[in-house]
Amino acid sequence: MTTTPKFQYKCNDCGATYNPLEIQYMCPECNKKNTANQPPKGVLKTIYDYESIKQQTFDSLKSRGFLDLLPIKNSESLPNLAIGQTPLYTLDKIDNEETEGTILIKDDAQNPTFSYKDRASAIVSAYAKEQEINTIVTASTGNAGSSLAGICAAQGQQGIIMVPASAPVAKLTQILMYGATLIPVDGTYDDAFDLSIKATEELGWYNRNTGFNPLTIEGKKTVAFELYEQMGYQAPDRIFVPVGDGVIISGVYKGFEDLLKLGLIEKMPTIVAVQSTGSDNIARNLSNSEFVVKQSNTIADSISVDIPRNYHMAKNFITSYNGEAIAIEDNEILEASYKLSKNTGVFAEPAAAAAFGGLLHYKKHSKLDKGSKNVVLLTGSGLKDLKAVQKMIQIPAPIMPNIDNLKKIYHD
Amino acid sequence: MTTTPKFQYKCNDCGATYNPLEIQYMCPECNKKNTANQPPKGVLKTIYDYESIKQQTFDSLKSRGFLDLLPIKNSESLPNLAIGQTPLYTLDKIDNEETEGTILIKDDAQNPTFSYKDRASAIVSAYAKEQEINTIVTASTGNAGSSLAGICAAQGQQGIIMVPASAPVAKLTQILMYGATLIPVDGTYDDAFDLSIKATEELGWYNRNTGFNPLTIEGKKTVAFELYEQMGYQAPDRIFVPVGDGVIISGVYKGFEDLLKLGLIEKMPTIVAVQSTGSDNIARNLSNSEFVVKQSNTIADSISVDIPRNYHMAKNFITSYNGEAIAIEDNEILEASYKLSKNTGVFAEPAAAAAFGGLLHYKKHSKLDKGSKNVVLLTGSGLKDLKAVQKMIQIPAPIMPNIDNLKKIYHD
Repeated sequence: MTTTPKFQYKCNDCGATYNPLEIQYMCPECNKKNTANQPPKGVLKTIYDYESIKQQTFDSLKSRGFLDLLPIKNSESLPNLAIGQTPLYTLDKIDNEETEGTILIKDDAQNPTFSYKDRASAIVSAYAKEQEINTIVTASTGNAGSSLAGICAAQGQQGIIMVPASAPVAKLTQILMYGATLIPVDGTYDDAFDLSIKATEELGWYNRNTGFNPLTIEGKKTVAFELYEQMGYQAPDRIFVPVGDGVIISGVYKGFEDLLKLGLIEKMPTIVAVQSTGSDNIARNLSNSEFVVKQSNTIADSISVDIPRNYHMAKNFITSYNGEAIAIEDNEILEASYKLSKNTGVFAEPAAAAAFGGLLHYKKHSKLDKGSKNVVLLTGSGLKDLKAVQKMIQIPAPIMPNIDNLKKIYHD
Repeated sequence: MTTTPKFQYKCNDCGATYNPLEIQYMCPECNKKNTANQPPKGVLKTIYDYESIKQQTFDSLKSRGFLDLLPIKNSESLPNLAIGQTPLYTLDKIDNEETEGTILIKDDAQNPTFSYKDRASAIVSAYAKEQEINTIVTASTGNAGSSLAGICAAQGQQGIIMVPASAPVAKLTQILMYGATLIPVDGTYDDAFDLSIKATEELGWYNRNTGFNPLTIEGKKTVAFELYEQMGYQAPDRIFVPVGDGVIISGVYKGFEDLLKLGLIEKMPTIVAVQSTGSDNIARNLSNSEFVVKQSNTIADSISVDIPRNYHMAKNFITSYNGEAIAIEDNEILEASYKLSKNTGVFAEPAAAAAFGGLLHYKKHSKLDKGSKNVVLLTGSGLKDLKAVQKMIQIPAPIMPNIDNLKKIYHD
């Protein structure tokens, strides 16, 4: 029995469509013309038969784990781990000041490996399982790698993680603890990326590289379905998303675009791409016809990217749906990180706190509309990157443990 | 209108009962006789009117957030954070070997500050709010302090955290990021403990010290209610709990004891206290009439305790309910940590992995009953203590990023 595939791939750039008869990464035509110094064209978007899916209610889609809107056959292919369904917190005040709109904090550090990347790894891993592929490779600067390693551990798959040798030891530790194979390369993230693709071509390992594998976007889109439900079956007005290579923001857009196509929402939320001024290769190029690279230098290592792998799709989404973009200084990111923890009890890594920094910037410039609902997407735990914030804090000198000393401190 | 208090305190040691007319920590009579070198007597147990609560079903108790079984008046006093309701995962195999019984992993790293301690901090903080107290102090070696700091941030309360100056910088960073006041003392955890109590007496700060404040046990018991529900309204056969000062294990016991008194379970699960041989001051003393201290030295810093603050209650529980105790070597803890991550995708701190080590020990000695259900309680994220496991792993040397090098590694 042959079944019609429930989804198609559509090239973000040339618009060609492909049936998923076999594993497919980029659009082969566009990919041929890609060069090393420009963001790649040919990232694929996954398209479903929205007209037929429309017959179902959101709750019925949810009861089936959104399987109709995911490129896998069976929910049982997913890892036995609680992925997604992360908390959404309402924040009324910041530093005791009321804000114009409502602020909602989506805490995706509450995932098995403590980052948003688990959403992508889970779908990629499930797909591999359905294709009976046991080895999955990815290039990573840290979070994607530790996520894939953790998800592979849960699935009994072999994760192979290629990292630049300079990657932080903390993230490498996590990768090794999950039993994955770690391959540090003497080079950059881009070198690791290219090597992983060669390994896929020549050794047959399934490739999870972000953007390059279109399923990463499909995994990352699930946050939109959750937000829609958590907010009472509506989209927020604005969503602040930390942006590096443009895959997470494309995932968020894609999720809401699915909801739009299903007629579940009437208009897209305004999505704000937040970057660091030290790595603003998407925000800075939005209005340029040619992409001009600026070398990255930011403390927010998860969003430090020279050539954003999903630049073109992110740009398409932002321009099609009237998105916004902003770049903030590293010191604003650090300050946002502190303000966020202090006001909410949610400790996020600097890259994630950048999204909160974007919101603070909007607040300061009175750009939050009265009565509006503004989501801040936090993509990873603060425990993943302590070094950056340690520059900002100072551990007090020890005191002798007697009450008179303490009173002196508190009553002088 | 005066209302009858819904709970009473009962001294674990002399049995005296007290009405909670004001804030109460230890039994004053027993506390008078306490000395520095022995575990304190007089920790209070919180007792409810079980006969009247019995009228309700478990689901109706749950729908009210178990408020009938908690020492607070109002669920709205609790922080606006997702505390507890953590995942329970079933593990069928370890290293591809089937186990005799079913293994269930309770992942309490999935809490706002990434540790079990949030359960206690939440109840303490809510109680303080109801008493209109804004400042909460605790002595801590790290996790309890970062938990209280995070919960206070969410509640708009002032957390004051006293730590030995030697506490790991990672945990201190988290405390400071939450905006708490950090007071390192030139001394041990015990010195910090004593100073925090003096501060409570002389400066009026509410005290969260574990065990000393009976509400910490009440907060920690909530895991029992969750397990009961997650396992289909029954208790597991065995629960492996990492043990340091004896408060978490007492919390787990207390929760199941509540269920027993309500007639919801017929017998207590067998609780296994797992310690490190480098810090086994509860396990080693269980059959002694006199407590003999051995100085602690273990890599599992969250369960490294000389004088367990809740020794007597833990011992009472273990002996009354036929509990078991085991001490395992540090290298078994490290190995357990690796096996756990590798087999499940759940990365826990060494103290937590000790519980899994206990289970592995039982498995190895064929002490898991066929068909039995065995829960392993994981109390904190592996990201909280990377140093310990870094001794065990080795980051491979970088390779030049070309495919021939890679093939050599994979085909030689």
